Amino acid sequence: MKLNIAVLPGDGIGPEIVEQGMKAVKAICEKYGHELSYKHALVGAVAIDETGNPYPDETHELCMQSDAVYFGAIGSPKYDNNPSAKVRPEQGLLGMRKKLGLFANIRPVTTFPSLLHKSPLRAELIEGADFMCIRELTGGMYFGRPQGRSEDGNTAYDTCVYTREEIERIVRLAYQYAQKRRKKVTVVDKANVLATSRLWRQVAQEIEKEYPDVETEYMFVDNAAMRLVQWPKSFDVMVTENMFGDILTDEASVITGSLGMLPSASIGVHTSVFEPIHGSYPQAAGKNIANPLATILSAALMFEYAFNLMEEGALIREAVTASMDANVVTEDIAENGKAYKTSEVGDWIADYIA
Amino acid sequence: MKLNIAVLPGDGIGPEIVEQGMKAVKAICEKYGHELSYKHALVGAVAIDETGNPYPDETHELCMQSDAVYFGAIGSPKYDNNPSAKVRPEQGLLGMRKKLGLFANIRPVTTFPSLLHKSPLRAELIEGADFMCIRELTGGMYFGRPQGRSEDGNTAYDTCVYTREEIERIVRLAYQYAQKRRKKVTVVDKANVLATSRLWRQVAQEIEKEYPDVETEYMFVDNAAMRLVQWPKSFDVMVTENMFGDILTDEASVITGSLGMLPSASIGVHTSVFEPIHGSYPQAAGKNIANPLATILSAALMFEYAFNLMEEGALIREAVTASMDANVVTEDIAENGKAYKTSEVGDWIADYIA
Ligand SMILES: CC(C)[C@H](C(=O)O)[C@@H](O)C(=O)O
Ligand SMILES: CC(C)[C@H](C(=O)O)[C@@H](O)C(=O)O
Repeated sequence: MKLNIAVLPGDGIGPEIVEQGMKAVKAICEKYGHELSYKHALVGAVAIDETGNPYPDETHELCMQSDAVYFGAIGSPKYDNNPSAKVRPEQGLLGMRKKLGLFANIRPVTTFPSLLHKSPLRAELIEGADFMCIRELTGGMYFGRPQGRSEDGNTAYDTCVYTREEIERIVRLAYQYAQKRRKKVTVVDKANVLATSRLWRQVAQEIEKEYPDVETEYMFVDNAAMRLVQWPKSFDVMVTENMFGDILTDEASVITGSLGMLPSASIGVHTSVFEPIHGSYPQAAGKNIANPLATILSAALMFEYAFNLMEEGALIREAVTASMDANVVTEDIAENGKAYKTSEVGDWIADYIA
Repeated sequence: MKLNIAVLPGDGIGPEIVEQGMKAVKAICEKYGHELSYKHALVGAVAIDETGNPYPDETHELCMQSDAVYFGAIGSPKYDNNPSAKVRPEQGLLGMRKKLGLFANIRPVTTFPSLLHKSPLRAELIEGADFMCIRELTGGMYFGRPQGRSEDGNTAYDTCVYTREEIERIVRLAYQYAQKRRKKVTVVDKANVLATSRLWRQVAQEIEKEYPDVETEYMFVDNAAMRLVQWPKSFDVMVTENMFGDILTDEASVITGSLGMLPSASIGVHTSVFEPIHGSYPQAAGKNIANPLATILSAALMFEYAFNLMEEGALIREAVTASMDANVVTEDIAENGKAYKTSEVGDWIADYIA
């Protein structure tokens, strides 16, 4: 198969972790005889520094022509500490989401037995938790207009908007994933307060009927925030709108204790983007100490979701598990023993695959 | 002192727990020689059943004439399972908040040594946690207009609005509480995405200067959702807008393992409301098994916040601690031993106070 990938390392540790992921991607292509074609492009603070634009047109063109985008991380202290900077890395991220039509952000939340002691939750609550958060990514308050200030500057407003089509598309996706999993969908909204949530619930109640094999649960967002901590194992597939998803998926990502291990996929209309959940971790940049496993696992998702190459995805996952079993891991998860460098972990995994 | 209280028991376990709280209130008034005058009124599902209105005008009049409102809980399965019911108990709650101008919902989050094992978090993370969540309660998406549907029904919208005055009022309150505590305020927003959050941050940055003795921390809401689970002890006073507050305060309330113990105060322009954080727990209604301690602790807040009677509040708190030390508690928190009835716990605490 011919694989056409755009590589966007971004800021901070982005370049070094994406480099390790690309080693795994190349090893897989070699082994399975796929023809790999890839090109790098700028995004985030580095793109602002070089072009003045966090998501340059050139980068966008490359993404549009690619079957998948392999993404590192964005964000730089230079901008984080200055919320009123006119051009910000986040604008690049939001622009990319909108322009590529990345409507569904998918985060599988899984636990790793050897990392359970790092979870803030009691082991019995989190052990074996395995669910998927699906966050709508191109609608809601993030993109709704009008947004701004009154003339005197003393009143501010944002608008949350959703259309039936936007909701249908992502709720259907949730049911399709649930059918391949434990067959349960939790629709999270605030239908007791918001008009958009009432539309979400109405549409979900219609779509629910198309999937009689899947159990549906409706939950208010405040309740979901509690349940993630109290009983994470009760979830299989959770689906929700953009802002609630921002909050809940981050909450979900820390309960496992394996934030450095969690990949994500953003499914788009034009192409799809694969990236680790963790951020650009500027303090570690250039030190060859960052954990590349979430990025490597994002490559597994890329093979599975973008190319439907399930065996390839499974082999990457196997290699990651093997590296953990062999204790070939970076300092953040190394236990009583030697910590490996970012590049050493990447090499080990590529060797394993080969 | 003359205390003029409106008593709104509401639905489910509301009446039985408020009854226990009123025993404590009466015991305190007796002991300290305060003249207590109180009247009951309807709210919630019971109010809908009797008057068709979840917050009847008569109830509102009573609240307006009272120095404090002592509130139980609202919500009934009859309405919960029917999100399209035209008249719903929640409307009563939202109507009450708006009409009484209850702009600040205050939730002290504290831990109880004997309940730490009930926390979903590892003991070392939560032991000794002691912070306060302040949620703006009459603005944001809950009340912003326009809210509704397009003519064809296929697009829905909500509006989030905040004015400088609304933000100033509650941020100042946060600093005032922080001055009496550990002198740290965490302002939670999503200033990297929302115009309303940018106004929040701008106003907070101005007010911050008026309180040089207090440390200020700005945090994005997704980060706050993580931090509550990873490092709850890093918070002292957290302040945020209505919807973020709905989610974060509920998350905060379960990390302690003592949801049945947490009181709240809603500070208003016209009067203030004191109520437990937990809900109406319909399954337990009428069984005399519900835990009345959160409601009794809400009475402590009432003496302190509404009447500035600190000694009275402290004595109620002492009585609650004593009941726990003596194992005179309901089945939800009783340990290897006899569980007491709701009314028995209420009597014991009133006796202790006397
Ligand atoms: C950086 C920010 C705009 C972004 C978001 O809120 O979507 C981030 O928190 C995320 O979840 O990817
Ligand atoms: C019942 C509902 C409208 C309410 C809210 O969202 O404010 C509740 O969740 C709360 O927190 O008091």
